[in-house]
Amino acid sequence: MEWLGNALERVRSRRPLVHNITNFVVMNTTANALLALGASPIMAHSPEEVEELVRAADALVVNIGTLDSSFIYSMIKAVSAAKELGKPVVLDPVGAGATRLRTRTALHIVSLGGVSVVRGNFGEISALAGEVGMTRGVEASAYDELRARELATEVSRKFGTVVAVTGRVDYVSNGREVYSVEPNSAVVEGVIGRVTGLGCIVTALIGAYLAVEEPLKAAIAGIATFKVAAEKAAEESPYPGSFHVKLYDWLYRLDGDLLARYAKVRSYEA
Amino acid sequence: MEWLGNALERVRSRRPLVHNITNFVVMNTTANALLALGASPIMAHSPEEVEELVRAADALVVNIGTLDSSFIYSMIKAVSAAKELGKPVVLDPVGAGATRLRTRTALHIVSLGGVSVVRGNFGEISALAGEVGMTRGVEASAYDELRARELATEVSRKFGTVVAVTGRVDYVSNGREVYSVEPNSAVVEGVIGRVTGLGCIVTALIGAYLAVEEPLKAAIAGIATFKVAAEKAAEESPYPGSFHVKLYDWLYRLDGDLLARYAKVRSYEA
Amino acid sequence: MEWLGNALERVRSRRPLVHNITNFVVMNTTANALLALGASPIMAHSPEEVEELVRAADALVVNIGTLDSSFIYSMIKAVSAAKELGKPVVLDPVGAGATRLRTRTALHIVSLGGVSVVRGNFGEISALAGEVGMTRGVEASAYDELRARELATEVSRKFGTVVAVTGRVDYVSNGREVYSVEPNSAVVEGVIGRVTGLGCIVTALIGAYLAVEEPLKAAIAGIATFKVAAEKAAEESPYPGSFHVKLYDWLYRLDGDLLARYAKVRSYEA
Repeated sequence: MEWLGNALERVRSRRPLVHNITNFVVMNTTANALLALGASPIMAHSPEEVEELVRAADALVVNIGTLDSSFIYSMIKAVSAAKELGKPVVLDPVGAGATRLRTRTALHIVSLGGVSVVRGNFGEISALAGEVGMTRGVEASAYDELRARELATEVSRKFGTVVAVTGRVDYVSNGREVYSVEPNSAVVEGVIGRVTGLGCIVTALIGAYLAVEEPLKAAIAGIATFKVAAEKAAEESPYPGSFHVKLYDWLYRLDGDLLARYAKVRSYEA
Repeated sequence: MEWLGNALERVRSRRPLVHNITNFVVMNTTANALLALGASPIMAHSPEEVEELVRAADALVVNIGTLDSSFIYSMIKAVSAAKELGKPVVLDPVGAGATRLRTRTALHIVSLGGVSVVRGNFGEISALAGEVGMTRGVEASAYDELRARELATEVSRKFGTVVAVTGRVDYVSNGREVYSVEPNSAVVEGVIGRVTGLGCIVTALIGAYLAVEEPLKAAIAGIATFKVAAEKAAEESPYPGSFHVKLYDWLYRLDGDLLARYAKVRSYEA
Repeated sequence: MEWLGNALERVRSRRPLVHNITNFVVMNTTANALLALGASPIMAHSPEEVEELVRAADALVVNIGTLDSSFIYSMIKAVSAAKELGKPVVLDPVGAGATRLRTRTALHIVSLGGVSVVRGNFGEISALAGEVGMTRGVEASAYDELRARELATEVSRKFGTVVAVTGRVDYVSNGREVYSVEPNSAVVEGVIGRVTGLGCIVTALIGAYLAVEEPLKAAIAGIATFKVAAEKAAEESPYPGSFHVKLYDWLYRLDGDLLARYAKVRSYEA
């Protein structure tokens, strides 16, 4: 996985400007994750400035975790501008399937045509596939590994974007190829569901990689980076508060060699 | 206090969905506290989705720490829906007494009739009792233990809800019985006022317990859980940054036995 | 620097109420920094309550890091009220130079006449001086130490406020005198750009000192306090997550003696 290490080093040397229109719960979390990785985040959602920021940015992250009408308007403006300018966009459909507002908003944004990557959990991506009842709040109500792999490809083909379904094993598809990112051990299992915003961090990291890689590789790189950093952090602390702190430490400490050595990426036919 | 340990274990096994309409300062803080405890939080405030989420949720947490007209509208919609559906609600009247907007909003929400528990500091609950000048910003300007106990009962009777006044010793009343939760030592005293959102965490934990206990016990359980976790955290670090991190660790590490053994709950006649 | 130590002790004993109208990314961060220092923060942005809170507060912090029209309206109301009441105000023009909305809003607020101190990075203060292209997102695109010193004086004279330009070396000017705050070592250099909201923390600390010192000294004290605390934190951990936690610890652990001994403040002719 040498390309993975190179991608990380390219993020570090280029320090891409990543514009985030994201939810209030994780604004601080994902800004810190992007800074720790080596990117330069800007968090901004005013309809009056989002187009100007998309023009300046290397990538756009759109996350629907807390919505209101002004945010939705800004997201549509920003994704439309990104499409016109050819800037890459990653969408996190937080809570799609939990409320009609979220499902509808996620589908609307992806239909604009400017989205390069969609990253969600099993329930959220199921909702985009038209299935109901797989989301409970912002968590997936189930995780079926085989179905996750299919879902990635199915939703990728449906919308013409790269789709990542994250869970214990993560699947990324561009509709033709599917890649899995597997854990190295079970070390994170106790703690991973006990900190808010971890999925949002993965999405933000994909945003940083979109500045230096094509969408399929950017999605794999963002996921693999999170997974390795999370495993190193969980080795240092199995408790959620301390794990969370160490996660930022490891997003910073991780280097290309370590990432390339630890990431367990495998390819499948779609 | 065996029931306390059982209540914690029930939260862990049921993993209740707790819908939070809360302030921007603590959205991340209380989501993480609920996850660390073992509940499943969703933070959402859009008028377009709050009723749908109340229907799905096991309990609702309403916290007025940062207000605007859209939030107030959503809170009223959500509490009204919860009342109709019989879902339990805990209200945190952050800063009541500090501004007319906050006092008025807290009184409005509690007057809707759907609130099961109100949790505030001495100044905030004084403001709900009609007393002025006891709040300075979002902190109580004084703490009078004897008066705190009376206040809990007085405000409980006034509004027909369980009321918790938290401070060094916490008092919870349903208008007929009063319970105190006492510290085991002075270990938290230096640090407890030096981290934001700790009161909001207590309120959120009460929300989780409301899914598995009746309001009086839920309030006692939320308070006792926080108190024990905070004491264990303060034993590990007396400084606010590290204490805050360890608090999440201990909300996760705490088990029913430890909680039942350490919680110092005492009952009084109202 | 005995006056510095005294200023810190005065903040601790007076526990000033600091009203913050700030951005969503750092609301939690700066509230925790102010509490760790020993001040009493309130975070509130509703147009309906900001004037009432300014009346109660000892100082006002205005930070434009995430804007919308309601926030701008509240900021103008609050700064106008502070001017009328003679309450000190510190402005953080986050991202000025990055978008027209931010540059325009910062210039509008400073033109109201109630601002005592402006604290920004090199790019932001350059934007207030009328220079373009020095801001990239919310980071300065360059740092020229000699120019930073000039800028502080130039912008101070232009607006009749104290101006602080922060970077590796910080410069503070009231238009007649310039002071620098220098690092004690390079210990923070790896980590300082990898945590969000550190500049916002400096601004908030200046707000706390404005309650006990005149603007020039308050700006120097806020900057020096941050710098010493950050150096002590970085000595304990060179990684961003852990450094961030230790920063709060050291804002709390710092005492007047330590601050007076470690702060490297030097004066220049303007």
